[in-house]
Amino acid sequence: MSINSFGHLFRTTTWGESHGPALGATVDGCPPGIALSEADLQVWLDKRRPGQSRYTTQRREPDAVRILSGIYEGQTTGTPIQLMIENTDQRSKDYGEIAQKFRPGHADITYWQKYGIRDPRGGGRSSARETAARVAAGGVARAALAVLAPRLTITGYMVQMGAKRIDRARFDAAQIAQNDFWCPDATAVAEWRDYLDFLRSEDHNSVGAVIEVVASGAPAGLGAPIYGKLDSDLAAAMMSINAVKGVEIGAGMAAAELTGRENADEITMGPDGPVYTSNHAGGILGGISTGQDIVVRFAVKPTSSILTPRRTITLQGEEAEIITKGRHDPCVGIRAVPVGEAMMACVLLDHLLLHRGQVGDGPRGKIG
Amino acid sequence: MSINSFGHLFRTTTWGESHGPALGATVDGCPPGIALSEADLQVWLDKRRPGQSRYTTQRREPDAVRILSGIYEGQTTGTPIQLMIENTDQRSKDYGEIAQKFRPGHADITYWQKYGIRDPRGGGRSSARETAARVAAGGVARAALAVLAPRLTITGYMVQMGAKRIDRARFDAAQIAQNDFWCPDATAVAEWRDYLDFLRSEDHNSVGAVIEVVASGAPAGLGAPIYGKLDSDLAAAMMSINAVKGVEIGAGMAAAELTGRENADEITMGPDGPVYTSNHAGGILGGISTGQDIVVRFAVKPTSSILTPRRTITLQGEEAEIITKGRHDPCVGIRAVPVGEAMMACVLLDHLLLHRGQVGDGPRGKIG
Amino acid sequence: MSINSFGHLFRTTTWGESHGPALGATVDGCPPGIALSEADLQVWLDKRRPGQSRYTTQRREPDAVRILSGIYEGQTTGTPIQLMIENTDQRSKDYGEIAQKFRPGHADITYWQKYGIRDPRGGGRSSARETAARVAAGGVARAALAVLAPRLTITGYMVQMGAKRIDRARFDAAQIAQNDFWCPDATAVAEWRDYLDFLRSEDHNSVGAVIEVVASGAPAGLGAPIYGKLDSDLAAAMMSINAVKGVEIGAGMAAAELTGRENADEITMGPDGPVYTSNHAGGILGGISTGQDIVVRFAVKPTSSILTPRRTITLQGEEAEIITKGRHDPCVGIRAVPVGEAMMACVLLDHLLLHRGQVGDGPRGKIG
Amino acid sequence: MSINSFGHLFRTTTWGESHGPALGATVDGCPPGIALSEADLQVWLDKRRPGQSRYTTQRREPDAVRILSGIYEGQTTGTPIQLMIENTDQRSKDYGEIAQKFRPGHADITYWQKYGIRDPRGGGRSSARETAARVAAGGVARAALAVLAPRLTITGYMVQMGAKRIDRARFDAAQIAQNDFWCPDATAVAEWRDYLDFLRSEDHNSVGAVIEVVASGAPAGLGAPIYGKLDSDLAAAMMSINAVKGVEIGAGMAAAELTGRENADEITMGPDGPVYTSNHAGGILGGISTGQDIVVRFAVKPTSSILTPRRTITLQGEEAEIITKGRHDPCVGIRAVPVGEAMMACVLLDHLLLHRGQVGDGPRGKIG
Repeated sequence: MSINSFGHLFRTTTWGESHGPALGATVDGCPPGIALSEADLQVWLDKRRPGQSRYTTQRREPDAVRILSGIYEGQTTGTPIQLMIENTDQRSKDYGEIAQKFRPGHADITYWQKYGIRDPRGGGRSSARETAARVAAGGVARAALAVLAPRLTITGYMVQMGAKRIDRARFDAAQIAQNDFWCPDATAVAEWRDYLDFLRSEDHNSVGAVIEVVASGAPAGLGAPIYGKLDSDLAAAMMSINAVKGVEIGAGMAAAELTGRENADEITMGPDGPVYTSNHAGGILGGISTGQDIVVRFAVKPTSSILTPRRTITLQGEEAEIITKGRHDPCVGIRAVPVGEAMMACVLLDHLLLHRGQVGDGPRGKIG
Repeated sequence: MSINSFGHLFRTTTWGESHGPALGATVDGCPPGIALSEADLQVWLDKRRPGQSRYTTQRREPDAVRILSGIYEGQTTGTPIQLMIENTDQRSKDYGEIAQKFRPGHADITYWQKYGIRDPRGGGRSSARETAARVAAGGVARAALAVLAPRLTITGYMVQMGAKRIDRARFDAAQIAQNDFWCPDATAVAEWRDYLDFLRSEDHNSVGAVIEVVASGAPAGLGAPIYGKLDSDLAAAMMSINAVKGVEIGAGMAAAELTGRENADEITMGPDGPVYTSNHAGGILGGISTGQDIVVRFAVKPTSSILTPRRTITLQGEEAEIITKGRHDPCVGIRAVPVGEAMMACVLLDHLLLHRGQVGDGPRGKIG
Repeated sequence: MSINSFGHLFRTTTWGESHGPALGATVDGCPPGIALSEADLQVWLDKRRPGQSRYTTQRREPDAVRILSGIYEGQTTGTPIQLMIENTDQRSKDYGEIAQKFRPGHADITYWQKYGIRDPRGGGRSSARETAARVAAGGVARAALAVLAPRLTITGYMVQMGAKRIDRARFDAAQIAQNDFWCPDATAVAEWRDYLDFLRSEDHNSVGAVIEVVASGAPAGLGAPIYGKLDSDLAAAMMSINAVKGVEIGAGMAAAELTGRENADEITMGPDGPVYTSNHAGGILGGISTGQDIVVRFAVKPTSSILTPRRTITLQGEEAEIITKGRHDPCVGIRAVPVGEAMMACVLLDHLLLHRGQVGDGPRGKIG
Repeated sequence: MSINSFGHLFRTTTWGESHGPALGATVDGCPPGIALSEADLQVWLDKRRPGQSRYTTQRREPDAVRILSGIYEGQTTGTPIQLMIENTDQRSKDYGEIAQKFRPGHADITYWQKYGIRDPRGGGRSSARETAARVAAGGVARAALAVLAPRLTITGYMVQMGAKRIDRARFDAAQIAQNDFWCPDATAVAEWRDYLDFLRSEDHNSVGAVIEVVASGAPAGLGAPIYGKLDSDLAAAMMSINAVKGVEIGAGMAAAELTGRENADEITMGPDGPVYTSNHAGGILGGISTGQDIVVRFAVKPTSSILTPRRTITLQGEEAEIITKGRHDPCVGIRAVPVGEAMMACVLLDHLLLHRGQVGDGPRGKIG
C-alpha cells in the first residue's frame, strides 16, 4: 500500500531525489540463495546511464550501485536488499528560476499543489533519475529469474521515434545493441539519427517515442484474476515510468480496429503444448500468461525541457516565460528502454512468486 | 495485496462467477455518513445491463443489487458494504463442448493451465458479468464523491468502433445517452449502426472499440509518487477490465509523435488558479492531477465468441474446431462504457482519501 | 491494506452487522483443487454456534453458511470464495435505549466518536457475531491445510476461567470436546460449572477467560522477518478477536520472569531433525516456526453486558445508568475457542503460501 | 504486504544486518511540511544506543543517522525518507563457531531452516540492532505527531525485571530518565541494580522484563474494525520487536480474572467530553481509541546469549555445547523501552492518517 512501492511479493520501494545525497531501492521478498553482486546490477545501470551518446543528457555520473544489505557471501539471504546510488554530479547551479516558475509539462506545479513544498533541484523526486533505482531493482529480479525461469529472456527496443516507425520486415534483434537508439531496424537508425540531430541542434526541440518490451519463454499461468492480472500489473508498472502516456498489450489500441475473426489467436497443438497461430493477445488471456511472448509497448512523451521559451506562471501567480536550459535528452524514450525491461523483470518475478505461493511450482493444468 | 481487490483506502474486492448463485463486491473503506440506497446503485447497473438493445448480449437479467451490510438508516456507517447481485438467467445449457475445448481468445486455456480447474459455465470468473460488481462498487464511489468532490463529473463514451472514429468537431455530450452506443457524434451513430448490423447478422463477426472516460472538476493534487501515481492506478484499473488491450492518458500513444514544443501544455493564470492552453497531459503531471479534465481512453478487443468456426485444441491436446453459439455482444465495448466510468470513480475516490490521509483536506500549495 | 481484511496471500475480508440481512467473509487466494463443501465449513460453525448450553447466549440461529463463489464441482477454483451466513434471529426489539446510551465496555462510544453514525442493533459491526465469518474462513483454511500440511493439527481449549486455572498435570486432550467449556481438565470443569452458574443466576455478572491454541505438526520455516513474523501476525490475529486484551506466545508474559538459562530451549538431534528440550519459545524463534508446537494464548475480558446497572452517558452528554438485558454470554471466552482455532488456521495457511512463494516448497536448509 | 514493512499509510520498511555496511529504514507516507533534521532523530537513537551503562552491550557505536531523501530545506516533502545508520563497530572476530552451531533461543536455526543461508555475523538480520532503524522511523513519526496531535505524549518505562515488579504506588514519572532502567520507581531501581549486577558478574545469566508504553492525549476515534484495529496493530508492532513474547492492552492477561462489573469502565461527562472512572480497556474499545491513555505492555524474554554452556546441534546435525561470548545485554528489556515508544509513535501516526483519510479531520460524532 506504500505509495512508493510496487509488487506483491517481490516488492520494490524506491526513494531519493535527483540532487539529494543518494537515491535507491529497497527490494523485499527476493528468494534466498540467488548469486548476486554489485557487478551483476551495474551492467544494467550502465545500459541506462546518461552521457553515453550525444542523444542523452550530458549529466555524467558513474551511477555506481552499492548493495548495503541482504547479501551474504555472494548470495541473497531472503532479507531486504538495499541498493544505493550516490548522486555525484549535483551541479551547484542556481535553481532560483525553477523554484519560482513552474515548467510546463513537468510535475513542478502538481507537487507544489499537492504538498505545498517541493525540491526544485533537478526535478527532485519527479526526475527521471529515479528510474536508475528501478533498473537496479530490475537487476535483482533478473538474477532471480535466471534461476527460477532460465528460459526467460527480456528484450526492449524502440519501435517509433516521433512519427517515424521501424519497418517490422527489417526487424533484426542483433541490431538493438549496435546503435544509440536500441533500434532493431538498421535503416531506421540512420533516419532517426538525422532527425534527432536536427531537433537537438537546430530546432531546440524534443520528441516522443514508443518502446516495446518482449518477454520470451515465460511459463503459462502467471497472473491472477481479477485485479492481480498480469496485464493490469504491467500497465501500472509501465505507466509509472516518467513521461509514459500510453500502454499497450499485444495488439494494443489497434485491437479496437480488429474483428473477432482477425483477433482470436487460433490454437494448435505443438510438441511441447499449445501453439498459437498469432499473438494479438500479447501473451496474456484473462490476465494470465499463455506461454507465448509477452508483448508490451508504451509511449514516452517528449521532454518539456527545451530551449524554446514557453508560457507559464510563477509561484505568485504571475504570468511568465521559461526556457529550460541544462542537460536534457532530446528523446527521453531512448533511456526508457532499459527501464521498461527492468519493470518487466520485476513484474514477472513477482508473478512467478505469487503463482508459486497460491498454486505451487509450475502450471497446474496439463493439456494432452 | 489480495489478487481480487483494487484500491488503497477505498478498496473493492469482487467475487463470483457467471453462472454461480450470485456475484458481488465487498467495498471497504467508504467514508461514513454518505446517503446510499440500492436505488442509487441500480441506476448505474441498469446502464450496463445487457439485453437493452439488439447490440448487446440477449442474456436478460434484472441485475438487481442488494446491499447486505454497511448501511444504517440510509447512510454508510464506515464498515464494509457488501453488494450482491443474484444470477437469475443461468440457462441449463450443456457446457460440455466448452468444458472440453478451449475457446480461442478466451481465458479458458489460461485458467486451466494456471489452476488445473475452471468453471466453464458462461466463462466462470473470467466472464464480463464480473463487471456488474465493479459498476455497483462504482456507484458507492459516486455517492461518496458527490459529497467530497461535488464539482466532479465523470462521463464515458465511445470514440471509435472498429476503424470508425467519431469526428471530434461534432462532439455533442447531449448525444451520449441518446443512442445505443454511448456515442457523442450523431453522424457516427448511423454509420456504426449499419456496420454492427452487418457484423451481427451477416458476417457473424464482432469488432473492437475505444472508450474515453473524462473526469471534470477533480481537484489538483490527487495521486502520489512514484507507484501510487494517479495515471498508474488508472492504467491498472482500466487494463483490468475484460478484453482491454491498451490504455491511454491524455495524448496517449500519440504523445510519441509530438515534439516537446507541441506537447507542453502552457500555463496561464485564470481567476481561480492555473489555466492550461491545452491538455495533452490528460490532467495528470508526474502522476498527480492538475485540476484539468482527467482523460483516459482504453481499447476493447472484439469478442472471440463468434459464429465463425475457429481452430483450437481440446483438453486432451487434440486439434479441433469451435463455434461459439449463445448470447454474445457483437461489440462488447458498448457495455464497457459504464464499467470504465465506475473504475474512474473508484480510483478518484481512493486518491481523494489517500490525499486527505497524507496531506489533509484539499491541495496544500497555493499559487498567487 | 483493507481495514476489514487480514492475511497476505490467503486473505479474508469479513463484512456484515449483527442484525443486518447477512454477514460473511470474502476469502481470496485459496489454492485451487481443494475439496470443499458447505458441510465442511458447517462443522466448525456448529462448534461456535450460540445456544448450545446454558452458558452461552440464547440467541438461536442455525448459522448456516452458503458458499456463493469459488467452488466448481466440489473443488476450489482459486478464485474468491464468498461465504454468507444469513441472520435469522433478528428480534424486533426496541434498540432505542442502546441507541441513546453508550454501554460501558462496549464499542458503542468509539464507533460513534469515530464515524458519527453507528448501527446499534445488537452491537452492529462490533458484535461477536462477526466471528462466525472468521470461523467459516478458518474452515476454508483448514481444508487447504489438510492437503498442504497433512500432519498439522490445531487444538484450542480454555485454560483459565476468571482466576481459576486448569491444573496442567491433569491435562487430557480427550476431555476438551466432552464439556461445555472446551476444558482439558475434568476436575476444573465441575468447579467452573458451579462458578458460572453462580455468576449467571445469582450474581448477574460475567467473567473473563484465557484460551490456548496449539498447532502441532507445522513445518519449520514459516514466518518472515521482520514485520511478516509469524508471531507478529498471530498476535494481530488474536488481538483482533472481540474482547481480547492480551496475547502470549510460548512462555508469554511469564518470559519476563525467566533467566536466560531457564528460557533457552536447548537443542538435540532426533531421528527426523532437531528436537528441543523445552518450548518456552512457543515454537517460534526470530518470527519463524521451529517445527515445535506453536503455542498461543489470549485473554478474553468479561462481557460488559450484564444485568447490574452501570453508570454511563447519553448521546446528549447527560449522565445515566444502563442495564444490558438480552441474550448474553456469562463467559464469552467459551465461544472464543473455535474462533482462536480459526485464526490460527488462517495465519498458518497464509504463511505456508508466503513461504512457498518466496522460498519454494518446504524448508530449504537441511541439518545433518 | 512487504514482509519487512509495517503500517498502512505511514509505512516503514527496515533493512540491514548487524554487521553489514549499514542498516536503516525507508519511511513512506509522511505528511509534507514537517520540520525534521538528523538531530531530531538522533535524540531518540541516543536513548537506545548501547554502551551507555554497564547493563547494556558494550558494543560502542555512535549510531549516527543520516537522512538521504525526503527532506528539503529542513522540511519533509511527502516523498520517501531514507534513514541510514552505518555499522562502524563490526569487530573482525571469528564467526566460525556461530556459523556452525545454532545458538539455542536464537533465530539461527530458523533462518537456516527457512532460507538455507544466513548471515551469522552478529545475528545478521535477526540482531536487535535492527531496532535502531525502528527508533529512527519512530523519530519521524514523533515529528509529524508533534504537528498533527500536539497534545500527545508517549512514555515508555520498565515495570518488571525478572519477577521483581515496581510498586505502582511509588510511580514517579520524573524518575524514568534518572536511572539506567527507565524505571519509574526509585526503590525498585536499587533492587534491580543489585540483581542485575549479580546476574551479569556472578551468575553469567540474563533476565527478562516487562515494558509499559503509554500514549496520553491521543484523540478518540483512531483504529478501524475489524482487522485494522488499533489494538491489533499495536499487538503486531510490539510482538515484532526482538525477544517479545507477550503483549497486553490495558488490563491485559489479567482481564481474564475480572468480572464484568469490575471490568467495565464506567462513563461520566466531563467538561471536555466523556470521562471514564477506570481504564481497564487501555484506551481502546472495539479496536478504536476512546481518548483515554492508550496503555500497552510487552514482555521481553531474557537473552539466550549467556556465558553458561548450553546444549545445541551443529549444521551437520551433531550434538554440541555452546557458550555465547561477546557483547550482550544482561537485560535486553532495558533497550526495548525506546523501541516500544517508537512503535507506538509509528502506529498512532499511521492511524491518524488512516482516520483522516476515511473520515476526515478529528472525531466525527459529537457527544453532548
